[in-house]
Amino acid sequence: MSKQQVNLQEPFLMILFGGAGDLARRKLFPALYSLHRNGLIHDRFAVVGLGRSVREQEEYRSIVRESVEKYSRWDTETEQDWSSFLNRFRYVSLDVADASGYKDLLGEVEGLEQKWHLPQNRLFYLAISPRLFGDVAIQLKEVGLTQTRGWRRLVIEKPFGHDYPSAKELNDQITGSFLEEEIYRIDHYLGKEMVQNITVIRFANSLFEAMWNNRYISHVQITAGETVGVGERAAYYDHAGALRDMVQNHILQMVTMVAMEPPSRLKPEAIHDEKVKVLRSLRRWKEEDVATHMVRGQYTAGLLDGKPAVAYREEEGVPEDSTNETFVAGKWYIDNFRWSGVPFYIRTGKRLDQKVTEVVIQFKGVPQNLYFNKNNDLAPNLLVIRINPDEGLSFQMNAKKPGGDPEVVPIAMEFCNNCDVESPEAYESLLRDALEGDRTFFTHWDEVSLAWKFIDPIRRVWDQDKDSLCFYEAGSSGPVEADALLAKDGFHWHSPRPRQRSIIQGSEIGSSQRRGCP
Amino acid sequence: MSKQQVNLQEPFLMILFGGAGDLARRKLFPALYSLHRNGLIHDRFAVVGLGRSVREQEEYRSIVRESVEKYSRWDTETEQDWSSFLNRFRYVSLDVADASGYKDLLGEVEGLEQKWHLPQNRLFYLAISPRLFGDVAIQLKEVGLTQTRGWRRLVIEKPFGHDYPSAKELNDQITGSFLEEEIYRIDHYLGKEMVQNITVIRFANSLFEAMWNNRYISHVQITAGETVGVGERAAYYDHAGALRDMVQNHILQMVTMVAMEPPSRLKPEAIHDEKVKVLRSLRRWKEEDVATHMVRGQYTAGLLDGKPAVAYREEEGVPEDSTNETFVAGKWYIDNFRWSGVPFYIRTGKRLDQKVTEVVIQFKGVPQNLYFNKNNDLAPNLLVIRINPDEGLSFQMNAKKPGGDPEVVPIAMEFCNNCDVESPEAYESLLRDALEGDRTFFTHWDEVSLAWKFIDPIRRVWDQDKDSLCFYEAGSSGPVEADALLAKDGFHWHSPRPRQRSIIQGSEIGSSQRRGCP
Repeated sequence: MSKQQVNLQEPFLMILFGGAGDLARRKLFPALYSLHRNGLIHDRFAVVGLGRSVREQEEYRSIVRESVEKYSRWDTETEQDWSSFLNRFRYVSLDVADASGYKDLLGEVEGLEQKWHLPQNRLFYLAISPRLFGDVAIQLKEVGLTQTRGWRRLVIEKPFGHDYPSAKELNDQITGSFLEEEIYRIDHYLGKEMVQNITVIRFANSLFEAMWNNRYISHVQITAGETVGVGERAAYYDHAGALRDMVQNHILQMVTMVAMEPPSRLKPEAIHDEKVKVLRSLRRWKEEDVATHMVRGQYTAGLLDGKPAVAYREEEGVPEDSTNETFVAGKWYIDNFRWSGVPFYIRTGKRLDQKVTEVVIQFKGVPQNLYFNKNNDLAPNLLVIRINPDEGLSFQMNAKKPGGDPEVVPIAMEFCNNCDVESPEAYESLLRDALEGDRTFFTHWDEVSLAWKFIDPIRRVWDQDKDSLCFYEAGSSGPVEADALLAKDGFHWHSPRPRQRSIIQGSEIGSSQRRGCP
Repeated sequence: MSKQQVNLQEPFLMILFGGAGDLARRKLFPALYSLHRNGLIHDRFAVVGLGRSVREQEEYRSIVRESVEKYSRWDTETEQDWSSFLNRFRYVSLDVADASGYKDLLGEVEGLEQKWHLPQNRLFYLAISPRLFGDVAIQLKEVGLTQTRGWRRLVIEKPFGHDYPSAKELNDQITGSFLEEEIYRIDHYLGKEMVQNITVIRFANSLFEAMWNNRYISHVQITAGETVGVGERAAYYDHAGALRDMVQNHILQMVTMVAMEPPSRLKPEAIHDEKVKVLRSLRRWKEEDVATHMVRGQYTAGLLDGKPAVAYREEEGVPEDSTNETFVAGKWYIDNFRWSGVPFYIRTGKRLDQKVTEVVIQFKGVPQNLYFNKNNDLAPNLLVIRINPDEGLSFQMNAKKPGGDPEVVPIAMEFCNNCDVESPEAYESLLRDALEGDRTFFTHWDEVSLAWKFIDPIRRVWDQDKDSLCFYEAGSSGPVEADALLAKDGFHWHSPRPRQRSIIQGSEIGSSQRRGCP
């Protein structure tokens, strides 16, 4: 949002590894199409799609077109518009592990740059398995693809390592070929409109700016809940777990956006510095603290929208004795002047009752028993930042019950961000930023490394103590232990809807299936 | 809102002066009906309607029924329900200036109290010309009507005097027959849901409570605009003017609700004490200050909703050289610790472009030129309390422009108080309070007298200096001088809609017709 309305885009060539893969089809082609159609990227661009399979150019362009037609939020256009878009795509077959293929790639790249009069601005996008990142980066340099007269940028997808040492190793490989400022680590949560809005809400509004500290804020709740199960990602997910898959990146990124000090300028490096400071101030749990501050859970069979859902251990590709977590909750502290004493409660999980990502700021209450809350039931002020799927803001406050009743009840002031206009997909926003050279909403190495250093001790405790795993039934709001985490402090999760637990066979699963979890 | 849900109502007899008058028909009968229907007043009650004309009982009951059918927000009921309601009404012809009639009234009252088994709780409601208030009060005492075994209460309508001396004289007359705590001075603005809500919004919400002072609030705007002209009230209005008709009572009452310190308890006397403190701290304008802090205007011919509207001086009953004001704006200060340096801008007028009563709290801005407002166009945070006709709250703040644009724009979080349920009429709420003996939302003598002491010097200046009158065309947002009042301080009125001035005959009326007004 520090951007001016001027177009910062330059002509470019995108070299897309995983050029016919799932991410390319579902997100990248539609994003490119949308940016192109709206004139938000330079009109002179081309894309080399790379993949292991051999494909005809026409076949590849059909894939691109189909994916845009299926996943784009835009209506289709004339045949002429289509061909003007699709002409820019060229498919090249490449075995990324085989050094010899990169020479051909260099030829293709140079040919396209000549054909489209491109000034050698090269965006390398790695939509492939992370274990290949290092090799690809090395090969790109060796063959000379990273020697350009224009800019070169590397976009990589998560996960970035599976712990600090592996992330460090990967980073060393990549930074042999690219400078840190040329590396764009995608965290697609940072591409979401309302996550980007957090900075604006905080720093462009005197009311919130003045209240955004431990004098006025009681605690913060961050929820990223999914209703889907593990799906087809079991092979990866059963090793990663929710802690690595969601907490190390998305949840921690949201914490930094909520908690950072006002940056000196709204420039990427200044914002980055403040986010790093938050991660440095985040209290690291020692092994003996993990049980009392972190909860992990795994879903059992349950009901979702009235339909039966199998247990995690019954999902395809998941071992039947898996102790992997599909849910994480935590109570964190940021030990600095602003946040001292303010807990940040976080939770994320699969197969929950609601698909919802939101941040709730609970403000401290007015003096108890003074005026209105003779029954001690005066609700707190809440600012809810709705991130997904609803986007918007809700401020819960107290007022007279509408209709003349003298009772005081909570009411909500609401703003909807995606009711009148559709928000761009996160990938649209991030791809545009990468093409403009704006790293504000990408993760820097300092952040990645500090995030792993915070996560690793928790992971170690959980890997050693399999009994730390709690259970929750699919379609519930998570293990009861996650509720207890707040209840101990006198709080409760603010669910968007009243919490409902489905009852199976007359008994509450979850508590009955619990084992030794804290 | 300090009220419990228990029913505090007792059986009562209402002695209604002006029993077939305009107020009775449009407001009081429908209010009584609604309260009765909802079980909010005791089931044992009766009403004596008094008027000069001679009327049959059946005729009177028809008047009551017709007025309920016409003005009530409820559907009509069965004939049985009707007769159970109407049976309680009895008409008595009385010349209020003639002492002999009161003896008959006493007999009627005692007869009804016997018939309905009423414990002599008497509500005297004076819906008659204020010049009769004093005489009626004296007569009621003389004949013994105020000697009751139950409670006695006097409800009187505005205006309460036309300056401090006349108000004092009237009050002396009334307090010869009733104690101050038995006198319920109606200010129907205090019966409005959202005016009553101001206390709750302020004191039941930590966020607003903490910000409600000169550290965070830039200024306050209070607007009470009408689109109607003087109508049939010219005889009264041309002598009173907007200053006495609206500012001395409604506007000042709203100022006290917004500005008062937290009362020690939410009890009528504690709240009253705080309101009085505000009136005491309100800076009184010396005669030489009036021109720079107050604006008065009178409407000229114009267009309202596309239809021509005549000038005030052309209205029926208004002298063609009248210098009466139909508009007042002011810039006030409350000289206490909380509000030092915070202007309260007020305005009220007839024949404005919008019928709207609202309070706008403008918060101080974030540091200029720091982040988002490179063009200096970052909007302030505004809390808008909508009182009439829309009821609700709106919080204007800054956020990313929805739809992916990096621009920062003002957005509004909204709450509507009367969208899902209808609010009760002010008179319903106030009549119920009077019957419960709750004087919270009635004006006490201290308030009336301090209000006049604030108003009188302004009135004196304006009466002496006829050239103080500005003009504004009907259908505009008032005289340009009212805008200048804020513009001098770098502010502008926050109109709910963009301000529009209609142009007549190619030139802007208002400025051209201006005379020597400041």
